[in-house]
Amino acid sequence: KMLKRVLWTVLFMGALPSLAEVSQGHISVILLGATGDLAKKYLWQGLFQLYRDQVSSGHSFTFHGAALTAPERGQRLMFDVLKKLACPPDESPNRCAVLKDQFLKLSQYHQLKTDEDYMVLNREIEMLLHQEGLKEAGRIFYFSVPPFAYREIAQHINSSCRPPPGAWLRVVLEKPFGHDLESAQQLAAELASFFKEEEMYRVDHYLGKQAVAHILPFRDQNRQFLDPIWNRHHVERVEIVLKETVDAKGRTSFYEEYGVIRDVLQNHLTEALMFLTMELPANVSRAEEVLQSKLQAFQSLRSLEKNSAVLGQYQAYASQVQEELQKAQDYISTTPTFAGVLINSDSLRWEGVPFLLTSGKALDERVGYVRVLFKNQAYCTQSETLRDAEHSQCKAKQIIFYIGHGSLNTPAVLVSRNLFRPVMPEGSWRETVGESDLHVIGQPLSDYYVYRPVKERDAYSVLISNIYHARKDFFITTENLLASWEFWTPLLDSISHQPLRIYPGGVENQHLLDFEMVSGEVAFTVAEPVELLKPSRTVPSDYKTIQSKFRQSRLVSAWSEELISQLASDIEKTASRTVAQFGQFHLALSGGSSPVVLFQRLARHHYAFPWKHTHIWLVDERCVPLTDIESNFFSLHNHLLQNVRVPYFNIHPMPVHLNQRLCVEDDRGTELYAKEIVALVANSSFDLVLLGVGTDGHTASLFPQSETGLEGTQNVVLTESPVKPHQRMSLTLPLINKAKQVFILVLGKGKHDITTLLSRVGQQPRKWPVSGVSPSSGQLVWYVDYEALLG
Amino acid sequence: KMLKRVLWTVLFMGALPSLAEVSQGHISVILLGATGDLAKKYLWQGLFQLYRDQVSSGHSFTFHGAALTAPERGQRLMFDVLKKLACPPDESPNRCAVLKDQFLKLSQYHQLKTDEDYMVLNREIEMLLHQEGLKEAGRIFYFSVPPFAYREIAQHINSSCRPPPGAWLRVVLEKPFGHDLESAQQLAAELASFFKEEEMYRVDHYLGKQAVAHILPFRDQNRQFLDPIWNRHHVERVEIVLKETVDAKGRTSFYEEYGVIRDVLQNHLTEALMFLTMELPANVSRAEEVLQSKLQAFQSLRSLEKNSAVLGQYQAYASQVQEELQKAQDYISTTPTFAGVLINSDSLRWEGVPFLLTSGKALDERVGYVRVLFKNQAYCTQSETLRDAEHSQCKAKQIIFYIGHGSLNTPAVLVSRNLFRPVMPEGSWRETVGESDLHVIGQPLSDYYVYRPVKERDAYSVLISNIYHARKDFFITTENLLASWEFWTPLLDSISHQPLRIYPGGVENQHLLDFEMVSGEVAFTVAEPVELLKPSRTVPSDYKTIQSKFRQSRLVSAWSEELISQLASDIEKTASRTVAQFGQFHLALSGGSSPVVLFQRLARHHYAFPWKHTHIWLVDERCVPLTDIESNFFSLHNHLLQNVRVPYFNIHPMPVHLNQRLCVEDDRGTELYAKEIVALVANSSFDLVLLGVGTDGHTASLFPQSETGLEGTQNVVLTESPVKPHQRMSLTLPLINKAKQVFILVLGKGKHDITTLLSRVGQQPRKWPVSGVSPSSGQLVWYVDYEALLG
Repeated sequence: KMLKRVLWTVLFMGALPSLAEVSQGHISVILLGATGDLAKKYLWQGLFQLYRDQVSSGHSFTFHGAALTAPERGQRLMFDVLKKLACPPDESPNRCAVLKDQFLKLSQYHQLKTDEDYMVLNREIEMLLHQEGLKEAGRIFYFSVPPFAYREIAQHINSSCRPPPGAWLRVVLEKPFGHDLESAQQLAAELASFFKEEEMYRVDHYLGKQAVAHILPFRDQNRQFLDPIWNRHHVERVEIVLKETVDAKGRTSFYEEYGVIRDVLQNHLTEALMFLTMELPANVSRAEEVLQSKLQAFQSLRSLEKNSAVLGQYQAYASQVQEELQKAQDYISTTPTFAGVLINSDSLRWEGVPFLLTSGKALDERVGYVRVLFKNQAYCTQSETLRDAEHSQCKAKQIIFYIGHGSLNTPAVLVSRNLFRPVMPEGSWRETVGESDLHVIGQPLSDYYVYRPVKERDAYSVLISNIYHARKDFFITTENLLASWEFWTPLLDSISHQPLRIYPGGVENQHLLDFEMVSGEVAFTVAEPVELLKPSRTVPSDYKTIQSKFRQSRLVSAWSEELISQLASDIEKTASRTVAQFGQFHLALSGGSSPVVLFQRLARHHYAFPWKHTHIWLVDERCVPLTDIESNFFSLHNHLLQNVRVPYFNIHPMPVHLNQRLCVEDDRGTELYAKEIVALVANSSFDLVLLGVGTDGHTASLFPQSETGLEGTQNVVLTESPVKPHQRMSLTLPLINKAKQVFILVLGKGKHDITTLLSRVGQQPRKWPVSGVSPSSGQLVWYVDYEALLG
Repeated sequence: KMLKRVLWTVLFMGALPSLAEVSQGHISVILLGATGDLAKKYLWQGLFQLYRDQVSSGHSFTFHGAALTAPERGQRLMFDVLKKLACPPDESPNRCAVLKDQFLKLSQYHQLKTDEDYMVLNREIEMLLHQEGLKEAGRIFYFSVPPFAYREIAQHINSSCRPPPGAWLRVVLEKPFGHDLESAQQLAAELASFFKEEEMYRVDHYLGKQAVAHILPFRDQNRQFLDPIWNRHHVERVEIVLKETVDAKGRTSFYEEYGVIRDVLQNHLTEALMFLTMELPANVSRAEEVLQSKLQAFQSLRSLEKNSAVLGQYQAYASQVQEELQKAQDYISTTPTFAGVLINSDSLRWEGVPFLLTSGKALDERVGYVRVLFKNQAYCTQSETLRDAEHSQCKAKQIIFYIGHGSLNTPAVLVSRNLFRPVMPEGSWRETVGESDLHVIGQPLSDYYVYRPVKERDAYSVLISNIYHARKDFFITTENLLASWEFWTPLLDSISHQPLRIYPGGVENQHLLDFEMVSGEVAFTVAEPVELLKPSRTVPSDYKTIQSKFRQSRLVSAWSEELISQLASDIEKTASRTVAQFGQFHLALSGGSSPVVLFQRLARHHYAFPWKHTHIWLVDERCVPLTDIESNFFSLHNHLLQNVRVPYFNIHPMPVHLNQRLCVEDDRGTELYAKEIVALVANSSFDLVLLGVGTDGHTASLFPQSETGLEGTQNVVLTESPVKPHQRMSLTLPLINKAKQVFILVLGKGKHDITTLLSRVGQQPRKWPVSGVSPSSGQLVWYVDYEALLG
C-alpha cells in the first residue's frame, strides 16, 4: 500500500513525465541479498544510477530489496545503506536531492524466504500495476546471494514470481559459477530447469570495467589501423595482468577452495583475452554476433598442459589457512595464490603469439592492464644517440587497456605515438596529456596517446545499465561459461600435484616470480629457491627393484609425462641420425589413444625434427573413411601432421577406402600398400615402428586367436577386431620384425595386468600377438609408464 | 745474386735457426702490384708480420715485390714503403729492428711484364734454392692488381712460374670477382683454366676482421648456451650493418659500376650472414666441413624480390658522377649508395627470422657490427620501478660481434649479462669492464660481458697468416662465390628500375633511411619525401585507349607484378566470402609457369587465406609421377602447399599414377577423379577455376585440333599434348564452364600474339580451346599483363 502511494506521488511530480507519457511500462527490480556487502558497496549505487539515467526513459521503476532478515530489521539495515547514496560530482545537487528522495520512496524491503513470500511479492506488484493502470515491462531479479541459495530462489521465482506473459524476466547471477566443468554443467543444468537462456545474466564484473568494455569498440572503431597489424605477424605478445597487494587473509575459507586461477584467470582475464582474440563481427553492437564470435575464439585455444603454468603461494598463506580453517600444523595447502599462464591460439590469426595471463595476491603493486605489444618491425638507420627521439619507429609499440590502479590510477587507453592516433568516441573518452615523468609499462607517458573516460563509472553501474538495455554480450552465457571451464579444467586437474613456489609477498618478491617461455611452456626464471611445496611424487620405491629389462629387451620407465617426453626425444634422435646417414627416415605409427600425447609433444616441442625427410606410414587402420573421427590417420593428422611440414608425397595413409567402399578384398588395398612399401622402403625395413599393446595383448591390428598376419610372406593384411569398427588393415608381424627399431609404448593402470602377464610369458603370438614382436636384426625398446608397470 | 747472399746471411745469423734446422722448405712470396695503394697500406705490413711470426717456423722466406714499373724506379718506390714498416707496441724494439733489417734484405723488386720476365723470376728462385740446397715448399702470388690484368698474369704464372712438383702454389685474388652471376662465372672459368681450385685464395677482407673471424669459433665454444636458443624460436632478428660516413667522391668511376650492394652486401655482409646461419660442422677447424656447411646455408636462402630492398642515394652523388665521369647535366645515375635488404632463410632453424643487411655511404656514423637480438621470452612480475635492474630478465638480450669504429672503436664481442657468460679463448680475447655511460646498440655497456682482442690485428695480416696456414675456410671458394652471385643477381637485375630515395648525407638523414618490414617486404618508414629518382615506368599511354573488357568479359591489366598481387588478393576475397557462406572453398588450379609466381605470392603474403577450409583441385596434370619435377602437382606442392596449411584430405592431386603405371585407360583414373569431384563439390561446380593460355590457344590440357574434352558429359579426360610429356589428364570444358568463377591468367610478351588473336575471334574451341571457356552461370575474368596485351 505504501509503495502504491509513493509511485503515484513520484509519477505525478511536476518535473517528471506525466503518467500518460509513461508508455514503456513498469520495471520491478528485486535485489536479493539487499543488505549484503556487494549490495552495500556497489549494487544500490548502481540501481540509483540506473534510476537517474532512465527516469525520463518512459519506464517507471520500483526497487525491492530482499533478504532473509525480518522486515523491520531488514528495512532499517537497507535504508541505512540507501541514505548514504550519492551522486557523482557532475550531477547538480538539486536534481540529485530530488531524485534520491524519489528513489528512496520507490524502494521497499521484503523478507523473502518461503514460496508464500514470493507469491505475496508477486501479488503486490500485480496489484500496484493494476491500480495504476500500468503495463508491466519486466522484472529484474539480482542474485546477490551465495550460490548454494541459487536453486531454492530460482525455484521460487519460477513457480511464484514470474511476470505475466508479454513482460520479460531477467535474473542476474554472481560468480562463482561452479568449480570445474562438471560442477558448472550441473549448476547450469539446474538453472536451465527454471530459466530460459535469454533470461539469465551471469555477471563477470570485469566486463563492466570501462577499459575492458572498450576493447571491442576500440577494435571496431580503429579497424583501418588494426586490420593490417592485429595478427601473429605483428603482435609480439599479449599480457593480461591483474596484480593485487592484498592477500587472502580473512577469506581463506573461500580462497582455499578456489585459488587464483578460478578466482581471476578462468573468468576475468579469460574474458579480456576473448575480446582481444575473437574475430570482429561485422556489427559489434549485435550481442548475438559478438557472443558467437567469442565462442569460436574459445574453440581455437590450444589446450593447456601442466607446464603451461607457473604457480606460487605467498608465504603467510599456509599459517592463515591453518588458523582460519583450524587445520593441523602439518596441513599443506596446494592452492595457488599466484599464477602465470601461457595461452596459445591455433587460429590462423594468432598462431604462435604468446598470451600471458598473470595474477596474484601479495604482490608488489595493485594494477590491472591488458597490454598488446607489437613486434619491432623497423630498422632505424640513424644511430639512436643522433636521432630525433620523438618520431622514432624503433621505440616499443603497444596498445594498453589500463583497467585501473597502478601508476595511472584511472582507467585509460594508451596507444604508442609511433603506432597511430586512435579513433575514440568523443562523448565517453577524452584525450589527456600525460606527465612525462610518469612511466607506464616501460615507457614515459609522453610516448603515448592517452585517453581517459569522460566519466569514471563503476563496473556494477555499467553492468546494471546493460541489464536494463538487455545487452547480453556484457554477460556470460551458459555456452561461454562452459567453454571457459572446458578450457581451464584440464589444467586445474593436472596442477593439483604441481609444486608451488613460495614467495615472501610484497616488494620482496623481486625476481622470484619472473617467468619465461621455453618451447611453448613456462618456467620460473630464477632457479628454485630454498622453500618449495612439492607434494611427494617421486619414483615409487618398489621400482628400484625392477630390472631395466623387460622381456629381455631394453625398458624405459617413468611417470607417463616424462616417459612421453623421453620417447619423443628418442624418436627425434633416431630420425636425425637416420636422415644424416640415409637421407630419409621411414616411421610407421600406430593408432589408439596413447600415441596422441606423443604426437602433440612431437608437434610442439621438436622443431628440429627432420620432417621434410620423414616418411609417415601407418601400422594399422580402421576400415572407415580417412576423414572419419574413428580413423587412425585422422587422429594422426589432427595431432601431428597438420602442425608439422611433412611433404604430401611422404604421407602414406592406408588405402582402406577405395572405389567408394571400405576394405573390400577385391579392391586389393593391402596389395597396394605392400607395393608402396616395397617401392619406397629399402628392404621393406622401416627405420622405426611404434607399437602399442591392448589389454588383450593385441598389437598393431593383430588380435589374439587369429593367425592372420602372424606368419607368412604377406606384409599387409585385413583383420577382424573383437571391438568396433571390426574391420582393420594392419602391417604383419614378419614385416614389423624386419624393422631396424621397434618401440612399444604402454601407458596407464589399465595396462597393468597385461604388462604383468607379458613379463612372465614367452613368445606366444597366437595368444598374445605382441609377444611375437622380436625384430630379427633390429632393436626393441619398451616404454612402459609406472602405472602400467606397477599398477 | 744479391738475394742469394742475403738469404745466406740471414739464415746463418746466430739468433736464428741454423740451416740444418730449416727443414720445412722455402717459401717465395710474390706481391704483384707491390707499389699500389693496398700494398702500401696493408699488404707489406701483413707480410712483415708473417715473417716475424714465422721466422722460427722452420720455413725460410723471400719476398718479391713486382709491378710494371721499370726496375730502378720500382725498387725505389717499394723500398720507400718497406722502410716505413713498423712493429706493434708489444714487440721488443731490438728484435723488431733486427727482423726489419732481415726482412728488407729478403725483399727484392722485379719488373714483371712479359712471359720472359716470369721465366727469369722462376729461374732466379730455382737457382737460389739449388745453390743453397733448399727444398722449395711453395710460392704465394698475391694479385694486388685490377681484375682486367688477372688473365694475363695468371697465364704467365701458369706457363712460366709454377713451382716444381711437390711444392704448392697459392694465388691470392682481390675483389671484385665479377659484376653479376654471368661475369663471375666467366671469370671463374677463365681462372680455372690456369689454376686448380685449391690453389686459389679469393680474399674478402671481412673474413680477416677479428670480430667476424670469431663468429664461428664463438658459436662452437658456446654450443652449450647457444644450442637451445640459436634458432627461430629464440632469435627475434639479426642485423648486419656497415655504415660509412665517407662518400664515393673520387671513386665514382668504380662506384658507378658497382653500387653498395656489389661493393659491400654481396660479399662482406653476406659472408658474415653465412657464419651466423650455417649449421655448425662437428669440427669448425676443418676447412672442408666449414665450406660445405656454408654452401648449404646459401641453398636455404629464400630468393629475393624487388621489395626485399630499400635503396637510397646521397644527394651529392649525382653531381660527383657528372663531374668525375663527364656526364651530361641530365644524366641520372641509378646506382644505390644505401641499401637495406631483408633476407630470409627457409631452413627449419631460421624460417621466419628477419636478417637485415644494411650499408651505406654518407651516413651519420662509421660503424660495423653483427647483432643477434633474442626474443624477449620473459615476463617480469615485479613492476620495473620496484625491481632490481641488475638481474632483470626483461632487458634486451643480444649478442654483438662489433667489427669496429663506432662508439667502442675497437673490435669486440658483447653478450648481454642476462643471457650467459660466454666461453672465450683466453689467449686471444680478454674481458674488459665497460664504462657504464657508454651505450652500445641501445644498452649501457655495463649490461654486457665485453671482450676485446688481446692484440688488435689488421684484417690483412690475419688473412696473410691464414694463406700461409692454408686455411681455405677464410677465403671465398668458387662455389661460394657463385652461390652468392646466384643469390644476389636477381635482385640486382630487378632493382635497376627501382626508385631511389635521395638523402642529404650525414646526421641530417635523420629518419629518412629508417625502414620497416611489412609482410615479408621492406619499405621506408617515413613517407616519400620531396625528391625521388623514379625511372619512368608508368602505364603505357596506349593502354588508356583499351577497353576494360576482353572478349566481352571483365579484364584486369597491369605490369605483371601488380597483376599477380591483384589476382592473389581477388582469389583470397573470393575464398573468404565463399567459406563464410558455404563453409568450404573449392579451388581448381592449373599447371605451367605463370601460376608459380601466384602460388608464391599466396603463400607469402596472404596469411588470412582460409586454407583450412579450402579444397585444392588440379585443372590438368602431366602423366608423370607426382614427385617428378615435371608434375604440375609437384610444382604446386613446392611453391604453395608446403608453405600453407591445407588439410591432407582437402588436397586432390589427379590420379595419373595408378598401379605403378601412368595414365592407363584401364586404371580408370579419369573416372576416379570425376567421382571424387561429384562426391565433394556441390553440383560439380567449382568455386573458382584458374586457367592459363598457351601460345597455341590451349587451356587446361585441352589442345587445338582435338575434340576430346570440348563437349559431352565427361568431366575428366585423357588428352595428348603436342609437346612432351605428351600424355595429360584434364578437366573438360563442360566441367570448367560449370564453375562459379573462372580466372584466366596471361603473362608475358610471348603471349602477345595469341592475346591479340583471341581479342578478335569468336567461340571456336576446336581451333583455340580457350575460346570455349564461357561459364554458363558463373563469371569470367581475364588477368592479362601489359606485355601480353600490348607486346
